[in-house]
Amino acid sequence: MTRIAIVGVAGRMGRTLVNAVQQDAGASLAGGIVEPGSSLAGADIGELAGLGKLGVAAVDSLEAIVDDFDVLIDFTTPRVTLNNLAACAKHGKGIVIGTTGLDDEELAALDAYRDKLPLVFAPNMSVGVNLTLKLLATAARALGDEGYDIEVIEAHHRHKVDSPSGTALKMGDVVAESLGRTLKEHGVFAREGQCGPRTDKEIGFATVRAGDIVGEHTVMFATEGERIEITHKASSRMTFAKGAVRAARWVAGQGNGRYDMQDVLGL
Amino acid sequence: MTRIAIVGVAGRMGRTLVNAVQQDAGASLAGGIVEPGSSLAGADIGELAGLGKLGVAAVDSLEAIVDDFDVLIDFTTPRVTLNNLAACAKHGKGIVIGTTGLDDEELAALDAYRDKLPLVFAPNMSVGVNLTLKLLATAARALGDEGYDIEVIEAHHRHKVDSPSGTALKMGDVVAESLGRTLKEHGVFAREGQCGPRTDKEIGFATVRAGDIVGEHTVMFATEGERIEITHKASSRMTFAKGAVRAARWVAGQGNGRYDMQDVLGL
Amino acid sequence: MTRIAIVGVAGRMGRTLVNAVQQDAGASLAGGIVEPGSSLAGADIGELAGLGKLGVAAVDSLEAIVDDFDVLIDFTTPRVTLNNLAACAKHGKGIVIGTTGLDDEELAALDAYRDKLPLVFAPNMSVGVNLTLKLLATAARALGDEGYDIEVIEAHHRHKVDSPSGTALKMGDVVAESLGRTLKEHGVFAREGQCGPRTDKEIGFATVRAGDIVGEHTVMFATEGERIEITHKASSRMTFAKGAVRAARWVAGQGNGRYDMQDVLGL
Amino acid sequence: MTRIAIVGVAGRMGRTLVNAVQQDAGASLAGGIVEPGSSLAGADIGELAGLGKLGVAAVDSLEAIVDDFDVLIDFTTPRVTLNNLAACAKHGKGIVIGTTGLDDEELAALDAYRDKLPLVFAPNMSVGVNLTLKLLATAARALGDEGYDIEVIEAHHRHKVDSPSGTALKMGDVVAESLGRTLKEHGVFAREGQCGPRTDKEIGFATVRAGDIVGEHTVMFATEGERIEITHKASSRMTFAKGAVRAARWVAGQGNGRYDMQDVLGL
Repeated sequence: MTRIAIVGVAGRMGRTLVNAVQQDAGASLAGGIVEPGSSLAGADIGELAGLGKLGVAAVDSLEAIVDDFDVLIDFTTPRVTLNNLAACAKHGKGIVIGTTGLDDEELAALDAYRDKLPLVFAPNMSVGVNLTLKLLATAARALGDEGYDIEVIEAHHRHKVDSPSGTALKMGDVVAESLGRTLKEHGVFAREGQCGPRTDKEIGFATVRAGDIVGEHTVMFATEGERIEITHKASSRMTFAKGAVRAARWVAGQGNGRYDMQDVLGL
Repeated sequence: MTRIAIVGVAGRMGRTLVNAVQQDAGASLAGGIVEPGSSLAGADIGELAGLGKLGVAAVDSLEAIVDDFDVLIDFTTPRVTLNNLAACAKHGKGIVIGTTGLDDEELAALDAYRDKLPLVFAPNMSVGVNLTLKLLATAARALGDEGYDIEVIEAHHRHKVDSPSGTALKMGDVVAESLGRTLKEHGVFAREGQCGPRTDKEIGFATVRAGDIVGEHTVMFATEGERIEITHKASSRMTFAKGAVRAARWVAGQGNGRYDMQDVLGL
Repeated sequence: MTRIAIVGVAGRMGRTLVNAVQQDAGASLAGGIVEPGSSLAGADIGELAGLGKLGVAAVDSLEAIVDDFDVLIDFTTPRVTLNNLAACAKHGKGIVIGTTGLDDEELAALDAYRDKLPLVFAPNMSVGVNLTLKLLATAARALGDEGYDIEVIEAHHRHKVDSPSGTALKMGDVVAESLGRTLKEHGVFAREGQCGPRTDKEIGFATVRAGDIVGEHTVMFATEGERIEITHKASSRMTFAKGAVRAARWVAGQGNGRYDMQDVLGL
Repeated sequence: MTRIAIVGVAGRMGRTLVNAVQQDAGASLAGGIVEPGSSLAGADIGELAGLGKLGVAAVDSLEAIVDDFDVLIDFTTPRVTLNNLAACAKHGKGIVIGTTGLDDEELAALDAYRDKLPLVFAPNMSVGVNLTLKLLATAARALGDEGYDIEVIEAHHRHKVDSPSGTALKMGDVVAESLGRTLKEHGVFAREGQCGPRTDKEIGFATVRAGDIVGEHTVMFATEGERIEITHKASSRMTFAKGAVRAARWVAGQGNGRYDMQDVLGL
């Protein structure tokens, strides 16, 4: 039974992590941390998460619960994460980090902890996305030379600022690499006007931005007579939260080191 | 019972039209025309269409069957179509024209027949596409001012040379017009790189080109919490053939005039 | 500006309603009620909803905020709802009720308030579902006699106990009624084994139960050569919350009476 | 270059096979056979297939072209197929058989040829379906124990008489076997009425019958927060024709034996 504490337990991702821990038979909820001075310190973290009373009160400092947990899960900001990394190393705890937006200096600071504690760091902790990448490589190798056209279609919410998504590019990369192609040479990111017929080796991308779509990715392999489509749909932060809890359970049994989700899932 | 003759009966569209006539309880197959000198003149047009013997032999001239039919269906080339239009007007027949690619001069020549015979001319004879346009107008008017993002996604076969498809643009136009917008101002035809968040009034287009996809169009209306999607999928030329036969039945009862599919369907 | 109070503000639906009110330019958040004795009384309802401090503290009795709001939104349980209905009638407030599971006696008790206050009661407050019903009627009337097969496909989360969903049945009813059919006679709710070919007039249902799917419904009209699909996807409680806020804004301007979402949306 | 002859070249599948051979750079069209006495004997098989003249005339007996081809492709009827098998064995030819509906006696007769010629026999020659089965096994093994619900959704044309399709059952079998389950115990083929919540290990099936859908299969793995969907869509007989031509090219290089599509594709 891995005892897990969660940073930012009053935020949306924090509450989702509480739910994910509660659903996991191999994990127990050992503590939750809110910002110093928050009106929610002392509140029951089960009630905060909409689960009813769990008998664990939110605290506003990691030190207050350092004897209670084995692994910390942190989806916050680079500065907060680096502080928590130092504290976990000092107290001999593991950590799972889903924080994004670290700059090169922060990445280097994080990496310096690779031999000081067991550490999982991954930009996308979804089990499904990581499995999908593996299926894509298998499909591309089986179909690639037999006249199948490859297209990547992705849809995200209206607030997303970049196109295509990082995950769509990663999917395209995996396919391209399996076929000895590159997105740089064969990626087609926009079609508009009189483009002429499709070329054999291009990998096309189509982007939808609308509403609250959490993230949907489809890779299509199409030829005359048939299509194979491999699709991943994220419906909530739970996909990331569950991946993080799975990572926490896994990392609790590892020695010091820096790991990613491929390590966790054994893919 | 409308007696129908088909031009180009040995081609793919012609054979599809034979099938569509055979399936329609209100229509009978009165003749089929092949190119002058074809080895298939004299062949049974049922066998040509893969239906078994129907007892109607293909001929290589319209004049040979002019007493047998009420309405001619013509999906061929502009030059052939204009010749057939002249023959139908001379003999008091109706005509349904699905030929595309007419230039301005040819369009004017066609239009000059508007008071000489009953004539249906439409670039897309699919019943479903024409219904979809009506549904889109209804949905856009009901949702438009309440924060729904609108996106048009279309997929076609690898040989298609233009993006987005004419039908996708028509769908976008109908939606835009229902909302007092224009595609010129609000259409977004490509997203690549750091585009920033979606704006409220844009109408986005995403294009897929792969394999043998006959034609798929989806218009999505998405807001926080829900999506409505209206989709049309053409699976074969049958959708156009059935629309043409429906048009032929309808036009047999009309006076001279030039009509389109909205007239035929009463939408 | 309609001043709205929310019952059950610490629950999932309550927090979603807080978000929906905050996003609506025509509504303001006037109060939130938690269960008597909850540890969350006094907490800021913005913080409870993950929005940061809004300066409105949760209370544990409606009477405490009765001067602050115009319309109450209630998605709770029948007993709680009937108590709140009495209080709103007494104090001259409007109410929007999304509570489900009322038995016949409770429904009669609710209906007895129809001339005592302005009251909206609807089992599904989604704007999109209500629009979809209208589109289905239009499509069914246009296509019904021309050989289109009609199928209803729905998917919900693993916890749903009934099949097909109430919304799927409602969609089937609307289609059937538009065509002079009935689900009793023409509905096909399961196909297993050697069923034989499809009959012309049947309306088929297919059911998926998996994961956390909030609710997806597609009605397909298919014939040789084409399909039209009309799809609604609920992605979160927000679709119901936004419909409820829209109903609250609308009912604030109405006289006493019992209304449903068709009234609110003017469909 | 494999020289291929096609049985039943005037039928729909035969014409599709002509197209598939023409598109394959490693195969040439060596002959086509029609029924004895057909009016189409002597017609150009390119014109029959809608491709224009190819200079190969249809014949009404296999013996007439026995020196011209290396491998025969036969999608006909059991009786015709067994005659052709005898002729191919006698003349030292290979054969690819897509004929279905053989009874036990006919299957035994076919199997008796396994050491007399190189023979491919497969009920579904689609490359995509065979790849999909492999992807499903990979996904099931990676996800099965982590709380993913599995559902199989399939759609076919209105004429199909059995539910679920044989391919859907095969997909379910592959998934079940990968997880140590069986469809006999865990398959749920219909849900109607008050079924109660989904159980953890069930594998659900949902069936759509409408229009001209050639065949669509999706296997969904869903948990809280995400879904993975693996989909195969057949759009025409081309998918089977191309698989058959690929099998013909492959079997031309094999010794006597009975093979299936897994052998051909090396999966």
